[in-house]
Amino acid sequence: MDPVLEGTSVISLFLEDSLDYDGTALRSLWAYRTLGTQGASLVSFIGGCDIPFEHMADLEDVREQKRIWSPRMLHFIEERFDMDLEKAILRQRLLAILVQEEVARQSSREIRREGDDLFDGDRKLSISIATVTPVSTKIHFGINVDRAEGLDVETEGLSTYGLDPRSVAEVVLRRYPEEMEGVQDARTRVRGLP
Amino acid sequence: MDPVLEGTSVISLFLEDSLDYDGTALRSLWAYRTLGTQGASLVSFIGGCDIPFEHMADLEDVREQKRIWSPRMLHFIEERFDMDLEKAILRQRLLAILVQEEVARQSSREIRREGDDLFDGDRKLSISIATVTPVSTKIHFGINVDRAEGLDVETEGLSTYGLDPRSVAEVVLRRYPEEMEGVQDARTRVRGLP
Amino acid sequence: MDPVLEGTSVISLFLEDSLDYDGTALRSLWAYRTLGTQGASLVSFIGGCDIPFEHMADLEDVREQKRIWSPRMLHFIEERFDMDLEKAILRQRLLAILVQEEVARQSSREIRREGDDLFDGDRKLSISIATVTPVSTKIHFGINVDRAEGLDVETEGLSTYGLDPRSVAEVVLRRYPEEMEGVQDARTRVRGLP
Amino acid sequence: MDPVLEGTSVISLFLEDSLDYDGTALRSLWAYRTLGTQGASLVSFIGGCDIPFEHMADLEDVREQKRIWSPRMLHFIEERFDMDLEKAILRQRLLAILVQEEVARQSSREIRREGDDLFDGDRKLSISIATVTPVSTKIHFGINVDRAEGLDVETEGLSTYGLDPRSVAEVVLRRYPEEMEGVQDARTRVRGLP
Amino acid sequence: MDPVLEGTSVISLFLEDSLDYDGTALRSLWAYRTLGTQGASLVSFIGGCDIPFEHMADLEDVREQKRIWSPRMLHFIEERFDMDLEKAILRQRLLAILVQEEVARQSSREIRREGDDLFDGDRKLSISIATVTPVSTKIHFGINVDRAEGLDVETEGLSTYGLDPRSVAEVVLRRYPEEMEGVQDARTRVRGLP
Amino acid sequence: MDPVLEGTSVISLFLEDSLDYDGTALRSLWAYRTLGTQGASLVSFIGGCDIPFEHMADLEDVREQKRIWSPRMLHFIEERFDMDLEKAILRQRLLAILVQEEVARQSSREIRREGDDLFDGDRKLSISIATVTPVSTKIHFGINVDRAEGLDVETEGLSTYGLDPRSVAEVVLRRYPEEMEGVQDARTRVRGLP
Repeated sequence: MDPVLEGTSVISLFLEDSLDYDGTALRSLWAYRTLGTQGASLVSFIGGCDIPFEHMADLEDVREQKRIWSPRMLHFIEERFDMDLEKAILRQRLLAILVQEEVARQSSREIRREGDDLFDGDRKLSISIATVTPVSTKIHFGINVDRAEGLDVETEGLSTYGLDPRSVAEVVLRRYPEEMEGVQDARTRVRGLP
Repeated sequence: MDPVLEGTSVISLFLEDSLDYDGTALRSLWAYRTLGTQGASLVSFIGGCDIPFEHMADLEDVREQKRIWSPRMLHFIEERFDMDLEKAILRQRLLAILVQEEVARQSSREIRREGDDLFDGDRKLSISIATVTPVSTKIHFGINVDRAEGLDVETEGLSTYGLDPRSVAEVVLRRYPEEMEGVQDARTRVRGLP
Repeated sequence: MDPVLEGTSVISLFLEDSLDYDGTALRSLWAYRTLGTQGASLVSFIGGCDIPFEHMADLEDVREQKRIWSPRMLHFIEERFDMDLEKAILRQRLLAILVQEEVARQSSREIRREGDDLFDGDRKLSISIATVTPVSTKIHFGINVDRAEGLDVETEGLSTYGLDPRSVAEVVLRRYPEEMEGVQDARTRVRGLP
Repeated sequence: MDPVLEGTSVISLFLEDSLDYDGTALRSLWAYRTLGTQGASLVSFIGGCDIPFEHMADLEDVREQKRIWSPRMLHFIEERFDMDLEKAILRQRLLAILVQEEVARQSSREIRREGDDLFDGDRKLSISIATVTPVSTKIHFGINVDRAEGLDVETEGLSTYGLDPRSVAEVVLRRYPEEMEGVQDARTRVRGLP
Repeated sequence: MDPVLEGTSVISLFLEDSLDYDGTALRSLWAYRTLGTQGASLVSFIGGCDIPFEHMADLEDVREQKRIWSPRMLHFIEERFDMDLEKAILRQRLLAILVQEEVARQSSREIRREGDDLFDGDRKLSISIATVTPVSTKIHFGINVDRAEGLDVETEGLSTYGLDPRSVAEVVLRRYPEEMEGVQDARTRVRGLP
Repeated sequence: MDPVLEGTSVISLFLEDSLDYDGTALRSLWAYRTLGTQGASLVSFIGGCDIPFEHMADLEDVREQKRIWSPRMLHFIEERFDMDLEKAILRQRLLAILVQEEVARQSSREIRREGDDLFDGDRKLSISIATVTPVSTKIHFGINVDRAEGLDVETEGLSTYGLDPRSVAEVVLRRYPEEMEGVQDARTRVRGLP
């Protein structure tokens, strides 16, 4: 593991070793349990994605019996020790936008966002979920490195654009903690109004 | 006043009449007091901006004795009846991004965001604040229509790009409530994890 | 299923098909999982009631090894996506009162409420619980249609009074969302005091 | 002052001396400042009601320039040291219902409730507000003893029914703390569900 | 069981019968399930301590595969029906300090506290955890009566100092509810500031 | 001003210049307004203490018309940007204990704590308050350097013990942030229990 940024309010790091995502990294304290990373964190890694129904947190996916699968994705796992799921969803939107902006910048393609999903035209690039555990809120955001075939939606991946997922990750791992620092900065210099 | 969107969780509307902003619209229930608009709302209007120190909510501005002034701005005032200032700041970031995306799209210029501020190169386009009242959280976001001269920072405005502020407002007044609806949609279909 | 009221802050609906209640409908997102009803909701149906100990949420019942059983009840299941159990209990009291008032009105009997329980004299009419899930709060309120025999308390049921449970349900499914709308109305027009 | 009930989670008391209500009793810690009553409390007294616009907390009244006046009312002032205005409004509904039930019982009249208002047919009996202070939530509920003339709505009062306001107060001062105790009882014996 | 103090906001009691602690007493409503004690409580008892990994709540212990064991401890189990884990940790610090002060006073030894751990020089005296359940927060604090041998840290126990654990318990069972009453007293007499 | 500790979650610093305390330092963002110190902070300084009634936050003092005065005190002002007054009071207790322990250690006197007050026998050493602002919670803790005469209570001061207030301050300014870091450490490594 390779710490990219420490000493900010969110520890962010990129894991050199490939790691497949099956939904269990969304559980509380995954980063602490498996990496020893304690506190608010954003962890990124590259690996396959295959989520069995019993691990799915988004019940829309369960209801529609969607397969959530990708041969190779750039993953981000965020954890923060507050308990407000709506707030986590707002942070998830900002994380999606940072990925969107960096992929658009590097690829010079127009990347479209709908809620927490990124698209290139009609082709879906990403999956994401924000959820709550007994002690924290969690976000998973995954963007295809390689295109996933055989799903009910056309997909696209970073490799089509010739992008290095690691270079996307590094920018997001730097910008997201800066964004959260900026939020804290704004929080601590404003007075209330009547 | 011209309601653009109703029936969503955030009422959004554009005021036809010009209105100058002096900071008092940030107080609680301003939309209800002055427009009769009750509940979560996003109100947009065009007018000058001149905020006396005693109305400033951002103490950085007060400390630095900054003049907050513009001859003509497109303003957005948001109110929401939850009490979490950090959450309001996260929503403020999303509002700033929606304005950024629309101005960039219409002007074909690269608009940069730093926290809640928009820039064109080094020229500042906007001002923004999120704050809390005894019963709600509030956001003000203002983007110059006409460039403000004589400040300690170079500024830029929508008129330089030949943009109609009303057309920017209309897109933001539609997309922001959609974004908030999307957040509620995500909030109400995810289960918790251990 | 037959939607009675939509477009309010609480979706309320009556299920035409009989459904037995065994406690599992108290779990999070039951209405979404089984009916596709997303968001705050009040769902009513008619069916038996038999709750095994492992599903009981009220530990007083578990401690006292109470049998919770009825041959046929009018059930209400409420879910709301805030996380305050005390607030859910306050809403539960209001729901119980709306049922009480409608049963009293239709039957011209004096229906007494103690906490969340309805009585006709010493005969118990109802059972209720409010609880919390990882993403929501839930209420179950059930009122006997047919009297339950063989319990440690005398019971009474709507059929004794010649009442149609469906007609009780319809009034409650209309009045409860109105009550919640009224609460939001009051919430969004009051200022704070020093 | 005459303590009716102590040793419950809400201290309730009736003030023997007449006291006019002008809105200032809604401020935080009024009971502590003026009566020495510390902690959650429900205080009742009899007196006139005349609220100047600058004390009005309900902005609907301010907007409509309503006169809020009564020659003689039975007043209830509740304070509780949590900070959730919506929860205070739910408690306000329960307080209104307890008054409604007691007035109906003693007068044998059908008293109708709409939100937090009580009516006898079209004649308004009561006024009420719930609001928030920096350290607590507050409720005022006032029911006419004598009819108020010259308002834009017809009113009715307890004296018309021959009711002694003190006897209504005593029942409410006993039942409301019991209701709140019941809520705490329910809160502390239920487990969570998945 | 022997109630030491009732009628305060925290019920505190000492169990005469020995009881071994295996981590399950940290679950929600343990005092209500097993003792019938409802509401906020501090329960103390004497017994062994052996916590299997699957019951451990502190993941540092799990990660380090620490054995948590003692032949005989004085245990305290606290439960409170609010949901803020950070607040529970602050209360846990106060509980640790009350035990520290009493053991120091009775033994005339210098007892050192680091976070929630008590030490006599380098010898560890205690273990503690604060955690959250779906309906409450919980604290366990255990101090050795007899020294635990064979652990990776040297330990000490109350019996070395000739102390009667019951006499330590009685003081803590009195002082902790007083401390919590004092917190409520302070909470309900202060006004907010701008 | 002389920063003692930075880079922890609470910035702590000691002001070299004498500063009198009149209650206004309890207002929100005082450290940011006057010192430029942004974020959670603990600021210490030495100076007189004289609080006019209109600045008093503790209404017990106002009710009893207590004079709050001291010729020279060691002051601590804490601010934290969460909004829970009860939690601030718990932190205030810990701050009082850290001062108590250091004064006891340096003076070898038995310093007694009652709630947030320190005593030497019957002589009062300190005053303290915790309160809430629209954006933060605040604590003031002041301990006499010189004894205050002419009050309705006997007082004592650090100078009687020959203590240097600065040396007491330095230890507290180091230990309090460590304590808060310890709370965060505990917060972020525990899992929830059922």
